[in-house]
Amino acid sequence: MKDVQGSRDHRGITLQKAGVKDIYLPLEIRVPDGSYQPVLARVSLSADLSHECRGTHMSRFVEELYGWSRRKLSSIEVKEILEAVRKSLGARRAEIELDFRYFIAKSTPVSEAMSLLDYECQFSGVLMEEEFLFRLGVKIPLHILCPCSREISHFGAHNQRAVLKVRVHYPESAFIWIEELVSGLEPLGSAAIFPLLKRADEKYVTEQAYENPKFVEDVVRDAVLLLRSDSRIDWFEVECESAESIHNHSAFAYHSESR
Amino acid sequence: MKDVQGSRDHRGITLQKAGVKDIYLPLEIRVPDGSYQPVLARVSLSADLSHECRGTHMSRFVEELYGWSRRKLSSIEVKEILEAVRKSLGARRAEIELDFRYFIAKSTPVSEAMSLLDYECQFSGVLMEEEFLFRLGVKIPLHILCPCSREISHFGAHNQRAVLKVRVHYPESAFIWIEELVSGLEPLGSAAIFPLLKRADEKYVTEQAYENPKFVEDVVRDAVLLLRSDSRIDWFEVECESAESIHNHSAFAYHSESR
Amino acid sequence: MKDVQGSRDHRGITLQKAGVKDIYLPLEIRVPDGSYQPVLARVSLSADLSHECRGTHMSRFVEELYGWSRRKLSSIEVKEILEAVRKSLGARRAEIELDFRYFIAKSTPVSEAMSLLDYECQFSGVLMEEEFLFRLGVKIPLHILCPCSREISHFGAHNQRAVLKVRVHYPESAFIWIEELVSGLEPLGSAAIFPLLKRADEKYVTEQAYENPKFVEDVVRDAVLLLRSDSRIDWFEVECESAESIHNHSAFAYHSESR
Amino acid sequence: MKDVQGSRDHRGITLQKAGVKDIYLPLEIRVPDGSYQPVLARVSLSADLSHECRGTHMSRFVEELYGWSRRKLSSIEVKEILEAVRKSLGARRAEIELDFRYFIAKSTPVSEAMSLLDYECQFSGVLMEEEFLFRLGVKIPLHILCPCSREISHFGAHNQRAVLKVRVHYPESAFIWIEELVSGLEPLGSAAIFPLLKRADEKYVTEQAYENPKFVEDVVRDAVLLLRSDSRIDWFEVECESAESIHNHSAFAYHSESR
Repeated sequence: MKDVQGSRDHRGITLQKAGVKDIYLPLEIRVPDGSYQPVLARVSLSADLSHECRGTHMSRFVEELYGWSRRKLSSIEVKEILEAVRKSLGARRAEIELDFRYFIAKSTPVSEAMSLLDYECQFSGVLMEEEFLFRLGVKIPLHILCPCSREISHFGAHNQRAVLKVRVHYPESAFIWIEELVSGLEPLGSAAIFPLLKRADEKYVTEQAYENPKFVEDVVRDAVLLLRSDSRIDWFEVECESAESIHNHSAFAYHSESR
Repeated sequence: MKDVQGSRDHRGITLQKAGVKDIYLPLEIRVPDGSYQPVLARVSLSADLSHECRGTHMSRFVEELYGWSRRKLSSIEVKEILEAVRKSLGARRAEIELDFRYFIAKSTPVSEAMSLLDYECQFSGVLMEEEFLFRLGVKIPLHILCPCSREISHFGAHNQRAVLKVRVHYPESAFIWIEELVSGLEPLGSAAIFPLLKRADEKYVTEQAYENPKFVEDVVRDAVLLLRSDSRIDWFEVECESAESIHNHSAFAYHSESR
Repeated sequence: MKDVQGSRDHRGITLQKAGVKDIYLPLEIRVPDGSYQPVLARVSLSADLSHECRGTHMSRFVEELYGWSRRKLSSIEVKEILEAVRKSLGARRAEIELDFRYFIAKSTPVSEAMSLLDYECQFSGVLMEEEFLFRLGVKIPLHILCPCSREISHFGAHNQRAVLKVRVHYPESAFIWIEELVSGLEPLGSAAIFPLLKRADEKYVTEQAYENPKFVEDVVRDAVLLLRSDSRIDWFEVECESAESIHNHSAFAYHSESR
Repeated sequence: MKDVQGSRDHRGITLQKAGVKDIYLPLEIRVPDGSYQPVLARVSLSADLSHECRGTHMSRFVEELYGWSRRKLSSIEVKEILEAVRKSLGARRAEIELDFRYFIAKSTPVSEAMSLLDYECQFSGVLMEEEFLFRLGVKIPLHILCPCSREISHFGAHNQRAVLKVRVHYPESAFIWIEELVSGLEPLGSAAIFPLLKRADEKYVTEQAYENPKFVEDVVRDAVLLLRSDSRIDWFEVECESAESIHNHSAFAYHSESR
């Protein structure tokens, strides 16, 4: 059968990316205690395409990905996938994004009831010839209470759910756990979010938030100071977006830096 | 050209609905002051299909809808669309849903600054032979403050954005404006939502909410009492969903009744 | 601490539903071979609320759900959750919806390459006093080719991805696997969908679809005949929605029946 | 009342962005014939925040935006909004994104039936001191037919709806209409998309697509050649994403260049 994709192209354009998007895949993610957590990942995978070829071989991306079904994955294996794709497609550059919800067990502050909170996470990797760039992304839900509303009101203060979205790059010689980002950044809101709160816990987080008011700008600046202080991180971006409870829109602050 | 859709079907099944979904259409909605507001509507339109025909004529739905582009619409015109569809397709039953964002001007409680708040609305209509059933739906964003959190805490109380979703049926002899549902139901939260709040307004709504704590259950029960008291309404359903600020999930309450 | 939720309400309204929505939970779903598949479920859980109480105890829903984290689930356990909720909240009626993606291994028609296709599934259950109503929902992606376009054109025919959404009720004495619904309904499109297709497979499904043109109305009618013939099923609804490739909207057909 | 936002900050971080997101606003967009089209815009608006201030004044963004309600907008007015924001907030940099659906009338190829197709568009602007950067984005739905499937199959070829997403930058001295991008790029698919097609039109586009097979890589390369040839454009990015009808995922190609 004729290989139409492999036929010679004459437009002279090496495409930066050609590949697949929105593939769902069951994977397992490494957990600090040595075990693995099964996750549902949504994946996009692509490679550059030489000006010589009319089309990429899309089925090879899919084939490579399904070889990883239900297998264990960390940044090391992300690089392996990209190396295999580069080789299989004869590409210079390959790129992947894996988005998944990851659960972390949390104990409530007073009653110590256990439950699981889910965090939207992303592994993204680019392999450019031999250079591998890996980024870890985590979205951390927070509770924030408005400093202005508290200051100007006789009682009460509007508060709301916010999300702190962070992406970091660290070199291949380093490693950062999702749990490290969460445990460092989650305390930067007015209070943490819990799936389950008994009455004594609810009193605790309500009062904690009232005593600890934060603008989205405060959360981002505190996050910047924390991320700067981690010598493993050589690039980060951080955004805090708040579903304002007195408005029908969001407030946000954003900052990005590289070392 | 052969009419494949019109060919005889032998499976003996009269389908309840066949039609189109997710068509975008610019329309104009009647405003109480006599003017019209341009809106962007997402539309689904269908009819039943006799067991005698293999397929419906999908292009006739689209043709009928585009004839209404940029035209003025209220429940009366919704019935006209369905009558035209029934006739054009030889159907017993036709059904439509139009979803759109509708803006209402709001003045803030203290500084009286004007702005526009958008409400997700729905016109839905069913024409079954000569009987026309019209339903009006509105989603009203609210600010609610937790009575439990307030009661048990020394200071503060968690609060959040909620949405009160209401759908009502009224007979052809009656008429209800979107503005009537909004002005009746919006006060049932702890405070109303505004796109724009100056500092004096923010103090006002913060304190108002603190003095007026509401569970989602409270909002729905108060809405039930209000909707029961409107003699034009002969069916309603109402749900209040709250994006809990101390959790990563929603709380909700729901109730439906017919007279 | 005062139980504000438990305080006496005087509005005289027994609410039909009060509960939680959009909780993410890791679960395991029973597979026909006796094993279990880990899934990510999005859950809503509610109960009715007596006119005597001001609010439901939202934390009890969450507590009950987290007790099921990473545990094995089928319709039997869905009933157990609802029984526990009814008891814990003193409710007459409890209701749950669990939505999750479920993977089934598929072999391509010619090259017999294996891959995994994901299906959006739903377990929904209502327990009304002692009566338990369970519904299984599955969304099956299909490839459909337009009979009209094929008939009127000299060559080619437009085709597209469609989704066949089915929900069935069967009594407690019966049991239906997700795999059974998929294997029965998936052949009703012009061709099945595969994550991975080698060139010989692509030729096969292209030609199969061309020889087997289907309107959404055809798919739904064929599904009705199949579902009627399954004596275990005493209610079903079925919809086929097609992302028309020559339009920017969808076409759909819908039918529902009970025995 | 105390200005908490304006209080002195000591963390020494000038934030790159602080502002508002997901505000809905009714606007009017300039049309080539000199008239204006009412649209529903979703807006985000932000400015940088000096290291000296604790928070930005969020209400000023909202106030500025609502001043533009129902007013006429093109790239010139986008700059005016940003200038007003920079001044009002004492910022160096201001940034806006406006997303809206825009309708263009289309006549079908044979029967010349008129209907309206909606395109998702974006105006994005950055004002950095005196330098203004404006980008126009348009998403164009297309019908594409797979060259490989056609080549290897005895009859038929799988085809599907795709979307060509383009963003271009042009200098302040130039101007490009949405209609120009659409009329240039829409012919690059296998066939154009129409909301309404009569039977003679359906035959036409079916056969046109079969004679004009295109990979997503073909569409992007043809778009690159076209965009390069427009001397007004000094930066562009273009992506074609195809909802593969034989798979449950998308294929895509992407390229970006500056002059």
